[in-house]
Amino acid sequence: MLTISNRGRQMPASPIRKLVPYAEAAKKRGTKVYHLNIGQPDIETPPQILAAVRNSDFKILEYSHSAGNESYRKKMSEYYARVGINVTANQIIITTGGSEAILFGMMACMDAGDEVIIPEPFYANYNGFATEAGVIVKPITSSIKTGFSLPPIEDFEKAITHKTKAIIICNPNNPTGYLYSKEEMEQLKQIVVKHNLFLFSDEAYREFCYEGTHTSAMHLSGADDNVVMMDTISKRYSACGGRIGALVTKNTSLLNAVMKFAQARLSPPTFAQILGEAAVDLPLDYFDAIKAEYKNRRNTIIKRLNAMPGVFCPNPGGAFYAIAQLPVGDADTFCQWLLESFDYNGQTLMLAPASGFYGTPGLGKQEVRLAYVLNTTAINAAMDCLEKALEEYNNIH
Amino acid sequence: MLTISNRGRQMPASPIRKLVPYAEAAKKRGTKVYHLNIGQPDIETPPQILAAVRNSDFKILEYSHSAGNESYRKKMSEYYARVGINVTANQIIITTGGSEAILFGMMACMDAGDEVIIPEPFYANYNGFATEAGVIVKPITSSIKTGFSLPPIEDFEKAITHKTKAIIICNPNNPTGYLYSKEEMEQLKQIVVKHNLFLFSDEAYREFCYEGTHTSAMHLSGADDNVVMMDTISKRYSACGGRIGALVTKNTSLLNAVMKFAQARLSPPTFAQILGEAAVDLPLDYFDAIKAEYKNRRNTIIKRLNAMPGVFCPNPGGAFYAIAQLPVGDADTFCQWLLESFDYNGQTLMLAPASGFYGTPGLGKQEVRLAYVLNTTAINAAMDCLEKALEEYNNIH
Repeated sequence: MLTISNRGRQMPASPIRKLVPYAEAAKKRGTKVYHLNIGQPDIETPPQILAAVRNSDFKILEYSHSAGNESYRKKMSEYYARVGINVTANQIIITTGGSEAILFGMMACMDAGDEVIIPEPFYANYNGFATEAGVIVKPITSSIKTGFSLPPIEDFEKAITHKTKAIIICNPNNPTGYLYSKEEMEQLKQIVVKHNLFLFSDEAYREFCYEGTHTSAMHLSGADDNVVMMDTISKRYSACGGRIGALVTKNTSLLNAVMKFAQARLSPPTFAQILGEAAVDLPLDYFDAIKAEYKNRRNTIIKRLNAMPGVFCPNPGGAFYAIAQLPVGDADTFCQWLLESFDYNGQTLMLAPASGFYGTPGLGKQEVRLAYVLNTTAINAAMDCLEKALEEYNNIH
Repeated sequence: MLTISNRGRQMPASPIRKLVPYAEAAKKRGTKVYHLNIGQPDIETPPQILAAVRNSDFKILEYSHSAGNESYRKKMSEYYARVGINVTANQIIITTGGSEAILFGMMACMDAGDEVIIPEPFYANYNGFATEAGVIVKPITSSIKTGFSLPPIEDFEKAITHKTKAIIICNPNNPTGYLYSKEEMEQLKQIVVKHNLFLFSDEAYREFCYEGTHTSAMHLSGADDNVVMMDTISKRYSACGGRIGALVTKNTSLLNAVMKFAQARLSPPTFAQILGEAAVDLPLDYFDAIKAEYKNRRNTIIKRLNAMPGVFCPNPGGAFYAIAQLPVGDADTFCQWLLESFDYNGQTLMLAPASGFYGTPGLGKQEVRLAYVLNTTAINAAMDCLEKALEEYNNIH
């Protein structure tokens, strides 16, 4: 019999997209849906960087260097220097989105059957890339009670086996918004050095920190060979559709291996490299206004959430996500109900059930992830909906 | 010890890029290098499609649908209808280059340890994607003596084991330029249907056929679930840097699986989707001039090659590649020597040693691949260099 692969069957569906058909049906009924389920910001892409693409004047859209244009990699090393990360252009491999950086990192560091430890809840697509690479994800639970801070280092020690090859951290975190402290990053460094593990650090949200400062894994000293940083311009410059990211490491044998994966797929997309290169030349205060806007949104949504009876949402220090605990038995059912059976003045909201971000079955059943990617007017309207919805849902369930 | 993965070590380096440092050194010495080693055409990207990107007026570069914009997939189904391929927009998944289509196909159809049969010489990056997917490549040798026609079907029968899951064909072929006949495609259909195998058909060069007509695997009847077509706009519209391709199949369970791989990496690049969508609206005679140009180049290079003492090059029916047998003991050494130690009036040429396109060690040692992606003046100048080089090389070796 002609059958697809086990890998194809086991590949997880996206938890943030599985409710899409219900949202589409709601829209067809004429209901307005506030999308807090996905990290697609409503912030405009800086016009200067779109103009760089639109004003490009080449006549042949050629392959670029497999590692990305050298001019772009040099610019990226300037950008990194500004955030205290000292890397050369040759320590940067430009990838097709941060997604490809994660996949290349997993492929080049781990074999099928190897294990990677990730604090949960975690970015759900790590599961997908792990499935592609045949790697087994070993989750370690972080708790909403501590605001999703790093789990005790003993939990990592307990989870490490002879098959463990890496730890993945996302800082600031998607989906929790937690900003890891310098001390927590140092703890991670010690454990990866002690056990000869790679430390994958997904820093897509680096520029969006509202409390305290960002500690990059590349700031850690004495772990040059262990640290692999994954990056992307998607969130930083509201350029999700560009599909340009980077894998950054000082580990030479890893760079050589990743380069072979990069060569196999020939080159990253040219237009988005032009976009990314122009982004490095944005005024240095570019992030100030964006950060102020996101901080205001965060303050708005967190205040509204915690004012609702039975809702608890820790105050996230970075990124543009928050995980809230709701007074419902099953957030999956509730989120579907929001789209299928509820509206308030013709409006409803779409949330991501948090269960999809946990590796341990059964966890996060009362939790949802909210992406505060909409302006405060929309956020307030969405929170009005949520407040009414929780009242109504708990009356009928 | 901190070590990279076996997969990272085993990942093959690109055979068409490994001589790059020698080419760079030659250029630094002031030698002009004609690049016949890589399929990067000098044909201009159609200005209309670059204009579509440059005139785009959105303000936020958003994620697209994971399967690609619906408007683009609808356009693609129009394009396919014009070449006799009847597929709906939902049977097309837009990928980041043809590369990603090949990787998704391998991942979704095959598990680690499964086997794929490929007539050799073959596109070397199939090795890379197979390594990523843990899939074992079983080459079947095609011969320069028959112009690299399909090996006898008994050779396929002999190579099939219980682990065989697919056959890959590239039509017209890279690296040989061979255009498979309708009869050969029918033979392939029969064997994949008989043994419940997938037929991966890489049709990147579909529009470039100079003798006879193109038989797409999607034209074969009674094999809808077996056939998976990989496509790309890279060569068709000289748009290699765009990184837009497609995986096309009528197999619903495969489409559902591939969709999960597509969701994990979020979306294909937006700018290049705009480019690809505009390409479908090019005048219907667009390919006539391009095809005439490539045919002229082919005629030029094949005539020149076969006029050189001891050189044999079959006449390829499609794509823009040819494999020639040279009167040298080891084409790898000769190609390096061309860049390191030879010039003719300050000029030399870069070729791809064919050994890198064979899966069977030791084959293709006297062969090189030539990409006729340069204009006829450049091709003639490159052939002048090759002629002189063979004389000189055989005098000293």
